Amino acid sequence: MIKAAIIGATGFTGSELVRILLGHPDVELIGISSESRAGEPFPAVHPQFEGFCDLTLVKAEEIAALGPDICFLALPHRVSMSYVKDWQDAPFRIVDLSGDFRLGSASTYEAWYGTKHVLPDLVGEVPYGLPELERDRLPDARIVANPGCYPTATSLALAPLLAEGLVKPDDLVVDAKSGTTGAGVKPSEGTHFTRINDNFRAYGLLRHRHTVEIEECLGRVAGTTVQVQFTPHLLPVDRGILVTAYARPVHETNGDALQRLYREFYADAPFVRLREAPPELKDVRGTNLCDIHVAHDPRTGRILVLSAIDNLVKGAAGQAVQNMDLMFGLPETAGLDLLPLRP
Amino acid sequence: MIKAAIIGATGFTGSELVRILLGHPDVELIGISSESRAGEPFPAVHPQFEGFCDLTLVKAEEIAALGPDICFLALPHRVSMSYVKDWQDAPFRIVDLSGDFRLGSASTYEAWYGTKHVLPDLVGEVPYGLPELERDRLPDARIVANPGCYPTATSLALAPLLAEGLVKPDDLVVDAKSGTTGAGVKPSEGTHFTRINDNFRAYGLLRHRHTVEIEECLGRVAGTTVQVQFTPHLLPVDRGILVTAYARPVHETNGDALQRLYREFYADAPFVRLREAPPELKDVRGTNLCDIHVAHDPRTGRILVLSAIDNLVKGAAGQAVQNMDLMFGLPETAGLDLLPLRP
Amino acid sequence: MIKAAIIGATGFTGSELVRILLGHPDVELIGISSESRAGEPFPAVHPQFEGFCDLTLVKAEEIAALGPDICFLALPHRVSMSYVKDWQDAPFRIVDLSGDFRLGSASTYEAWYGTKHVLPDLVGEVPYGLPELERDRLPDARIVANPGCYPTATSLALAPLLAEGLVKPDDLVVDAKSGTTGAGVKPSEGTHFTRINDNFRAYGLLRHRHTVEIEECLGRVAGTTVQVQFTPHLLPVDRGILVTAYARPVHETNGDALQRLYREFYADAPFVRLREAPPELKDVRGTNLCDIHVAHDPRTGRILVLSAIDNLVKGAAGQAVQNMDLMFGLPETAGLDLLPLRP
Amino acid sequence: MIKAAIIGATGFTGSELVRILLGHPDVELIGISSESRAGEPFPAVHPQFEGFCDLTLVKAEEIAALGPDICFLALPHRVSMSYVKDWQDAPFRIVDLSGDFRLGSASTYEAWYGTKHVLPDLVGEVPYGLPELERDRLPDARIVANPGCYPTATSLALAPLLAEGLVKPDDLVVDAKSGTTGAGVKPSEGTHFTRINDNFRAYGLLRHRHTVEIEECLGRVAGTTVQVQFTPHLLPVDRGILVTAYARPVHETNGDALQRLYREFYADAPFVRLREAPPELKDVRGTNLCDIHVAHDPRTGRILVLSAIDNLVKGAAGQAVQNMDLMFGLPETAGLDLLPLRP
Repeated sequence: MIKAAIIGATGFTGSELVRILLGHPDVELIGISSESRAGEPFPAVHPQFEGFCDLTLVKAEEIAALGPDICFLALPHRVSMSYVKDWQDAPFRIVDLSGDFRLGSASTYEAWYGTKHVLPDLVGEVPYGLPELERDRLPDARIVANPGCYPTATSLALAPLLAEGLVKPDDLVVDAKSGTTGAGVKPSEGTHFTRINDNFRAYGLLRHRHTVEIEECLGRVAGTTVQVQFTPHLLPVDRGILVTAYARPVHETNGDALQRLYREFYADAPFVRLREAPPELKDVRGTNLCDIHVAHDPRTGRILVLSAIDNLVKGAAGQAVQNMDLMFGLPETAGLDLLPLRP
Repeated sequence: MIKAAIIGATGFTGSELVRILLGHPDVELIGISSESRAGEPFPAVHPQFEGFCDLTLVKAEEIAALGPDICFLALPHRVSMSYVKDWQDAPFRIVDLSGDFRLGSASTYEAWYGTKHVLPDLVGEVPYGLPELERDRLPDARIVANPGCYPTATSLALAPLLAEGLVKPDDLVVDAKSGTTGAGVKPSEGTHFTRINDNFRAYGLLRHRHTVEIEECLGRVAGTTVQVQFTPHLLPVDRGILVTAYARPVHETNGDALQRLYREFYADAPFVRLREAPPELKDVRGTNLCDIHVAHDPRTGRILVLSAIDNLVKGAAGQAVQNMDLMFGLPETAGLDLLPLRP
Repeated sequence: MIKAAIIGATGFTGSELVRILLGHPDVELIGISSESRAGEPFPAVHPQFEGFCDLTLVKAEEIAALGPDICFLALPHRVSMSYVKDWQDAPFRIVDLSGDFRLGSASTYEAWYGTKHVLPDLVGEVPYGLPELERDRLPDARIVANPGCYPTATSLALAPLLAEGLVKPDDLVVDAKSGTTGAGVKPSEGTHFTRINDNFRAYGLLRHRHTVEIEECLGRVAGTTVQVQFTPHLLPVDRGILVTAYARPVHETNGDALQRLYREFYADAPFVRLREAPPELKDVRGTNLCDIHVAHDPRTGRILVLSAIDNLVKGAAGQAVQNMDLMFGLPETAGLDLLPLRP
Repeated sequence: MIKAAIIGATGFTGSELVRILLGHPDVELIGISSESRAGEPFPAVHPQFEGFCDLTLVKAEEIAALGPDICFLALPHRVSMSYVKDWQDAPFRIVDLSGDFRLGSASTYEAWYGTKHVLPDLVGEVPYGLPELERDRLPDARIVANPGCYPTATSLALAPLLAEGLVKPDDLVVDAKSGTTGAGVKPSEGTHFTRINDNFRAYGLLRHRHTVEIEECLGRVAGTTVQVQFTPHLLPVDRGILVTAYARPVHETNGDALQRLYREFYADAPFVRLREAPPELKDVRGTNLCDIHVAHDPRTGRILVLSAIDNLVKGAAGQAVQNMDLMFGLPETAGLDLLPLRP
């Protein structure tokens, strides 16, 4: 059994990690931490777990003493890198779910995150844990950077086109829509029920941090510089991201060719489902799936790709477990045979 | 024109007062206050008003200098009574939308609100502004206590039965459900979108402050002591209260007799609509209406009354304007011919 | 492995049975039927199952030929009893999820359902499958009547009080609120998004069929005639029932005594969670749990009990599987270790 | 007073026309029709109107006899054109809210709507009633084609750019999101609450009829052929359309220049609000407003324009009344001083 611990278990990602790890046949959840609520039983924070997980939250420093094989860092950026720094020589492996180690260089990080990086040399060295696209370095990794939710949905949607060199890498429009869990558990004016319910808006216009993460990830796939126009919106739903992506082919193509391309590209990806109809959030709710629909518009020549994920699962906790599975030599589906909850 | 001002315009009740007063043919809105956001234009707080109300928020103390005829206090309890104290001899009239002057005595107030009253002698002297039930003292009132949202919906539902002496005054069950605006504009764990959406729960079990307000109001109607079992719940909707009330008749009755009783009791109440079907929140949304449905269950003998209001209008701002209309000798419908927004 | 089949798999209950049975370690799902959509793959009706269940829907008559050990009838009432009639001598067992065999006599059935029963002698002979209350006859049963959603939530809430003789059996008010899946999959004016969203209403006032089912079930628990005032409401949520029940004790009691009573009564019930706070729908979403909170109001003397279930799981498909487990000698939790999906 | 009638008052557009016309100071609503529900009082269909509009629905043929000055056709396409044909010589004016007369030629109509036009010569002759863009022909018009909801939001968003020749007319991406009222009042699998709630999806991919309407409208503004990539999505909200549009400038520009352009272009448009923040649906709910935010991305060079309308008001009934105002020489704001209902 892999001994796993979660650092920062009070947020949505933390609780989702607990939900998944509790059902993982090869994992024992040995500890969960929270600085602010240490000493309280987990159900005091997430009452749905009463009877399922009665672990007590502890301070992060106590976790190491429990002898974990792996720690999941479900922390805000900035906070996360300080733990990685402290635990550089620790005897356990790490999946970092923050944005601190996803980018290619400390300078890019500092430009988009507006903060100094405390481990500049490590940035760019940490494998990016989007297994469908970059699987090779995961088995040996001591630390893996778990991708952001939007980059997961977007990169999976566009990767086949860019890997094939089929579309212009500098003419990509990504119109993304996310459920409210993406905004985090912390109450704010922006997450008040009455602000979200029966409402809809864009946010983070032109400068959302996931933009550069998408560009770097797809750039590695394409082998060239990629530029995306990325616009996130906030949906009155709990979970889920739907990405509508627009690309321009560099030569003639058609729907059948695109279907074939995607089917081959994802032939070995157990969590990608190619759908005949445009995907819906509820079809992937609670699961590690990414549903993708690709279409060619003969009228305009453009390619449209729509993808749907559960931002808390494939966009965070589920993908983190998938990475763990690969780091520990398990089948990547271990513990992730989650069925959609619909309706 | 009546010169009106709003003290505390940053909450939902404040913004709803602005919405209604802007359309009132006999009112000029001369000032709006906020201690925390003084100096900002109103649309900086409530962006929907851009182009409709570009007043700047000021400190409350500046309001008096504007020479209002009436001030609406849209403040939390405790804060409100301190303004009333300061303005005891002010030359303008007041509608207080807080709970500070609704109850019959300072001791009752202190028992349910857990705080000392600063004007104990005034408590119990201020007319209770539920015009359908107690209209006489409003025209001469300098200050009126605007009822709570639950008490409005509940008292209007049950008053005809109690006025007639038709039901046991100590065997009343009131199961109430409210939209989230009732919880106020302030972000909290309890108003986070993900806590409310696709969810439902009771709160304030056994000890909600509106319990005693309902009992006192209905007690005056009944001419005897009234006891209610009151249970509020939180709905995943923005606006609206639905009350389901259960009463026991003291003698035989039937549906027809009840219809007649309600029709006569509310013959002169322009905002009460007696409905043949159970009421729905959306039929009263944005309006000062109270929709009521009454039924007799021949199987159990009980009487059921269901009522629906918009908690921000008939349950707060609209009723406050109705009270103002009556205080100033206007028709009580002035400025309140609001149609439901449905769907 | 138990060979299971589902008759009528196109509704919400059918799809939920598939979701649960696919994860059941002791079950093989061998067939699913639909008269109207026979010949189509299951994901054509419930697209979320693509990749999880690619069975083809067949006509019900073909199911028997597959040699099932058990058939779940997820059919409307009236339709269901005709299958039971046809399959009276079939070599498989049946869990009927309709209302056709839940009541004590054909005459009661005909009075509340307004239709003739085709197997009048069987009505009243079929065990009622609410295992927490009536477990004894299940192991030997050839056919089990799966309880309704409201009766499940209500009976579990009130049973300890009635078993103990603690409350008046003829003074019970049950104010219930259900998610929209309770109204079925069929599109209608009443289930149109705009009718439900941001709205709330009561329905089936005074005459909902579950009333008599609750009264009979609790009557068996109490050993005397029980009468409830039952009022269902429709919530703008997908799943979940919350029941708020009001009872009158026949002698002095208090909160501690009630906690003790409930804890003892449900000591061996793995799906009942006694909660310190009022229950919420999302804490049980996707699970077979029933969360219960009991309180005594010293002011009024009344007892309040609140319960929450997922109407599609504990209120339908999950309970059906729990019944199957008991019918086949499995632990009643087999295949039902479902964690809540929250948020 | 203008005598107005509504043909087809049972849908959402019909009820919204009633809501607006009841409050119009220069209009008397003399008749409302429905073929399927003639003989019933209006509140039997739209219960919110009880006490506000107790007109009885009649057959359309009876409307003409009432001597209206104007008829609003709130009918499905195909049905609408047959009324226009019957009423070619009628003594009243017409605002047609269907798609039957919005396009430039019968052949285009037939290509996108898949049906023969019964008045091919009239198609292309009827003024298109988007007053902010094409106002001149409205005062003299006998019949006006009221724009579609998506075209209204999209064309207002992009018109200044195309009028100025600032952007490539063949490189426009329009990602649009609509509330469920856009799908009409008729119950269907696609409008069932559980399909929409907590869900999100695209629909009508590549072939939505509003595509060509947008292209033609913007083509007239641009004076050249325009091609848009238009993708509609379905939001779990009742009302509102949010459009996110992406354009490529043909020469250098910046945010300030764009603000100036839009401010000048819409200087005389009372219903267009240029917003500093991305618009939100609730800021325009219940109103005839179109909120627009324009931005330039210096990183990618693209221009982004976001617009928000209430699809039932500015996207249908409100704009129809605005057109009526202009047809009858009234100020275009007459009867349309509607404040947003928020929250």
